Amino acid sequence: MSNPTAAMLVIGDEILSGRTRDANMHHLAQELVKVGIDLKEVRVVSDDAPAIVAAVRALSEGFDQVFTSGGIGPTHDDITADCIAEAFGRNIDVRDDARALLAKAYGARGVELTEARLRMARIPDGAALIDNPVSTAPGFTVENVHVMAGVPSVFQAMVASVLPQLTGGTPLLSQALRVMRPESEIAGPLRDLAGVYDDLSFGSYPFQANGVYGAQLVVRGTDGARIDAAMIALQEAFPDA
Amino acid sequence: MSNPTAAMLVIGDEILSGRTRDANMHHLAQELVKVGIDLKEVRVVSDDAPAIVAAVRALSEGFDQVFTSGGIGPTHDDITADCIAEAFGRNIDVRDDARALLAKAYGARGVELTEARLRMARIPDGAALIDNPVSTAPGFTVENVHVMAGVPSVFQAMVASVLPQLTGGTPLLSQALRVMRPESEIAGPLRDLAGVYDDLSFGSYPFQANGVYGAQLVVRGTDGARIDAAMIALQEAFPDA
Repeated sequence: MSNPTAAMLVIGDEILSGRTRDANMHHLAQELVKVGIDLKEVRVVSDDAPAIVAAVRALSEGFDQVFTSGGIGPTHDDITADCIAEAFGRNIDVRDDARALLAKAYGARGVELTEARLRMARIPDGAALIDNPVSTAPGFTVENVHVMAGVPSVFQAMVASVLPQLTGGTPLLSQALRVMRPESEIAGPLRDLAGVYDDLSFGSYPFQANGVYGAQLVVRGTDGARIDAAMIALQEAFPDA
Repeated sequence: MSNPTAAMLVIGDEILSGRTRDANMHHLAQELVKVGIDLKEVRVVSDDAPAIVAAVRALSEGFDQVFTSGGIGPTHDDITADCIAEAFGRNIDVRDDARALLAKAYGARGVELTEARLRMARIPDGAALIDNPVSTAPGFTVENVHVMAGVPSVFQAMVASVLPQLTGGTPLLSQALRVMRPESEIAGPLRDLAGVYDDLSFGSYPFQANGVYGAQLVVRGTDGARIDAAMIALQEAFPDA
């Protein structure tokens, strides 16, 4: 049986404009590997409602689980929650359970629950809240879409809240061998090994370091003993590695 | 007149598996801003032919320019060139002009042009080659899709080769103000300013630093004087920034 699949949707003008680097993709990818959910696609779209709605629909239909990051804060450019509601044809409004979470947290600090703050309690009908132990304002899950914050510390906390509730698969294992030879010299032996170990996947990721070409050879699969055997064969094929 | 639009397609098992962080997205985003081409979407897909073909077709239809990175090397997992040919219904084979480039470079180093190396001369019919001053093996352009290497130094060199040939637009300018207050306190005044300066776009990007919440407020537009005026108004609204 194959593993469940996943996609990620990053809502990120800041990333598309080159001002900031995305950090959440890398974190989610690492966490999903551990639980055996295969991340198959990531999309980054701008803070544009039609683009977000279309991407949510496409990814929700195409993959078992979808994780979004960004656009659920209190400012006017935070439009993700409304877009999710639109994508699934649901109503959205300030919801009592989310309002209660915010009222308690702000109350404890003696801070008023303003209209701007209440925006963070706008949750589509029927969504399940995602716990936010860092800064209270919850994420939420609608159908197979998990809507989370863009601030990395909050995103990571929400991922930790969501993942234990999902059905995972067989964790994908991998080992790597760094070979300081150009890919064009590696290609033949690597292809032969990939043919022998056809239950594993062999990737070659070239790099350049101090003017020398090399490649990171990565063997992936779900059977650790098979990967061990393939790594021994790789080391024999590239004894100078 | 609005700027030309662009999308990027990253072919990257390595990124989706969490082993490596993408570096090319950030570089391309920064370069496109300078020439007034609006990067609207990025997709990361795995080294899977149907996924690559579908993404190439969708992005080529949806945007003025498409830039791909990854999967054009000599190893068996480099399938991008064949996928591009399939996406556009073109034949692909070793092409004389690309073979000549490789033969000259390898010849100068006294290195044989093996079958694996010749894979890098596989170019779809009718494609224009993209110069690779770093490591010779060319990228190529088919219709509005620019196919480039994944190694960052080579990707960057190819971007530098391609961009001067494209029609750009008005460079998007931006200025930022870092405000050490939670977004929920910023939201009201920021929304008001966004209403007054409705020819500009106002973004708020929250962060957490040493336990304190703040936000990077970013004003974007094409008129530098208007952005200057908006920044003065922002500073007046948040005098503690």
